[in-house]
Amino acid sequence: MIDPLAGLTLSRLRERTSVKWRLYPADVLPVFVAEMDAELAPPVARALSAAVERGDTGYPHPGRLPEAFAAFAERRYGWRVDPGAPVLVADVMTGLSAALEQVSGPGDAVVISTPVYPPFYRALRDLGRRIVSSPLDYDKSRGFRLDLDRLEADFAAGASAYLLCNPHNPAGLAFSEAELLAVAALAERYGVRVVADEIHAPLTMPGVPHVPFASLDTEASAVSFTAVSASKAWNLAGLKAALLVPGPGADVSGLDPELPDHAGLFGVLGSVAAFEEGGEWLDGLRESLLRNGALVARLLGERLPEVGFVAPAATYLSFLDFRDLGLGADPAEVLLERGRVALVPGPHFGVEGEGFARLNLATSPEVLAEAVDRIVKAVS
Amino acid sequence: MIDPLAGLTLSRLRERTSVKWRLYPADVLPVFVAEMDAELAPPVARALSAAVERGDTGYPHPGRLPEAFAAFAERRYGWRVDPGAPVLVADVMTGLSAALEQVSGPGDAVVISTPVYPPFYRALRDLGRRIVSSPLDYDKSRGFRLDLDRLEADFAAGASAYLLCNPHNPAGLAFSEAELLAVAALAERYGVRVVADEIHAPLTMPGVPHVPFASLDTEASAVSFTAVSASKAWNLAGLKAALLVPGPGADVSGLDPELPDHAGLFGVLGSVAAFEEGGEWLDGLRESLLRNGALVARLLGERLPEVGFVAPAATYLSFLDFRDLGLGADPAEVLLERGRVALVPGPHFGVEGEGFARLNLATSPEVLAEAVDRIVKAVS
Repeated sequence: MIDPLAGLTLSRLRERTSVKWRLYPADVLPVFVAEMDAELAPPVARALSAAVERGDTGYPHPGRLPEAFAAFAERRYGWRVDPGAPVLVADVMTGLSAALEQVSGPGDAVVISTPVYPPFYRALRDLGRRIVSSPLDYDKSRGFRLDLDRLEADFAAGASAYLLCNPHNPAGLAFSEAELLAVAALAERYGVRVVADEIHAPLTMPGVPHVPFASLDTEASAVSFTAVSASKAWNLAGLKAALLVPGPGADVSGLDPELPDHAGLFGVLGSVAAFEEGGEWLDGLRESLLRNGALVARLLGERLPEVGFVAPAATYLSFLDFRDLGLGADPAEVLLERGRVALVPGPHFGVEGEGFARLNLATSPEVLAEAVDRIVKAVS
Repeated sequence: MIDPLAGLTLSRLRERTSVKWRLYPADVLPVFVAEMDAELAPPVARALSAAVERGDTGYPHPGRLPEAFAAFAERRYGWRVDPGAPVLVADVMTGLSAALEQVSGPGDAVVISTPVYPPFYRALRDLGRRIVSSPLDYDKSRGFRLDLDRLEADFAAGASAYLLCNPHNPAGLAFSEAELLAVAALAERYGVRVVADEIHAPLTMPGVPHVPFASLDTEASAVSFTAVSASKAWNLAGLKAALLVPGPGADVSGLDPELPDHAGLFGVLGSVAAFEEGGEWLDGLRESLLRNGALVARLLGERLPEVGFVAPAATYLSFLDFRDLGLGADPAEVLLERGRVALVPGPHFGVEGEGFARLNLATSPEVLAEAVDRIVKAVS
């Protein structure tokens, strides 16, 4: 079995030039931003090397990315996507913003399930939408869960759209078919349009299914928009390619025809290779992530049981609850200062994130053990 | 001397996956979109290959791109840029739109020197600005020229900003210091803010200087914004990196702090290599382009003297005047249908482009000769 998270040493990782390795000084261990400490999947590396060789660096063309994604979605999720439907965009946030502009107007209320990915807040503010935080239900021992009663109340109060994050970042949840059917029913009842961020879709733990909202047989799904990408599961955030997938009943007439111009050609080529040939590597990665979640659960359980940690069912992100340690609203600040370990501050995800910090599990077991060690020392 | 435009055969070029090689069927010779038929400059190829090897594909960090550009600008243009000033953006259009939002408001008039790069129109429409076309002066034998009287009239009528294209696409002009000083004086007199697209700056013909508007010692320059990139001169459009350079007196408080997130890391790395080590290759390219301009002038002069062609002083683009051939507003349509050669339709650049078509000179002499051959056959 391939183990994509084994083998890269810190000295090799520190040669990288991406945000993860350049934002902080070299004495800080970075386990914050959602990049993976993996080598490229071999088919992806081959596709990119061949493009360098060809000098193939001109304007991005979607090429066969829509077809490659549609085939992947059908194989993995049983989701049938018309290959003519997806629109190439630079990144998932660009696609989500474009979709939100289609389904809501300035001043409209848009619901998000909080705590949630920080750029959601900024995108909604930039669009002039009213942000309605609908908190997830939380329990320290079992983690987060969708609160359908609260969601109904927030829909009923008058919302135009629901920006769904599935799998959920930072809660690590893969929503079940039953939950998503309930969301669809609520969306239909209250006239709410669903825009789904499914960037983490390939990254469910082994045995956990990802259910695309758009794959449900509901009216809400038919008019939904879904943003997908290979960027998270194959670590291609810097190459800039994602797809916005409109449901068959979604009006796309207002989408900016120049959206594809801002995508990256290497992102397209890397994503095609990932979706077409990266499945075995992905499955190895999912096994590695499962082991890493178990490792952190064990280490924290032994050394710092006050911290709430639930291994994610999907994504390589976990939201650690430091509230019983009295570190204040932003434990990440304390961890950075005293432990020289960088997590993402919980408050970035909304007020529900106060007292939390997000840890990135997509690294080697050695780095994770070192991260836990630094966390333990910082709070001792 | 390096000759970047020699050696690539059509069969190798057709393996590329970019817009230039995928938009039209294989029987069409593409000389339309501004991509070059060159191999990558060796330092750029090495930088990209090393990034693939490192798996360095995470979130984009500006790294030393601002410093690399500042050193290049000082060496090449004598323009001193504070390395702390440039903002990483995905592409020049993203940067120009961000700058226009800083210096003008919804409904404000923004002047452009037409015919001009088609995305200028869309960007201004998307921003809700009023587009004021200020035509360049034109003479079939000497080509386009800035019309300062007309520009003054358009500034005087009440404009907030001037979106300067320097070097000018598609007119192929490198504006002189005297012309730009006159623009600056008009901008100051009428309270017009200058936003400069200098994406083609490295691509002046040998002996022709590029004068950055921001390098002038004027108040208008101090509050200007300039968008620059290695993407045109080193053919990196698909890798997504550009810089927005605010003048030292420009207010940047409204710029979206997430602009850099939409750039590409490979664009950053390729651009650093280009600015730092790509000078010799660039100078070889400029010589090649000078020869190509002379070649097309000679071929058209011999075979189709009715067509107005003036070799560009900068850029690898030329705007061919077909109006004496009676091909209607869009000669490119006729050339595509009858000659299977793809140029950019002149009307895309504004009403002043009716009867024109844009030809891309950045290819081998053999391909250019074939393009002229197809043009001649199409109109015979």
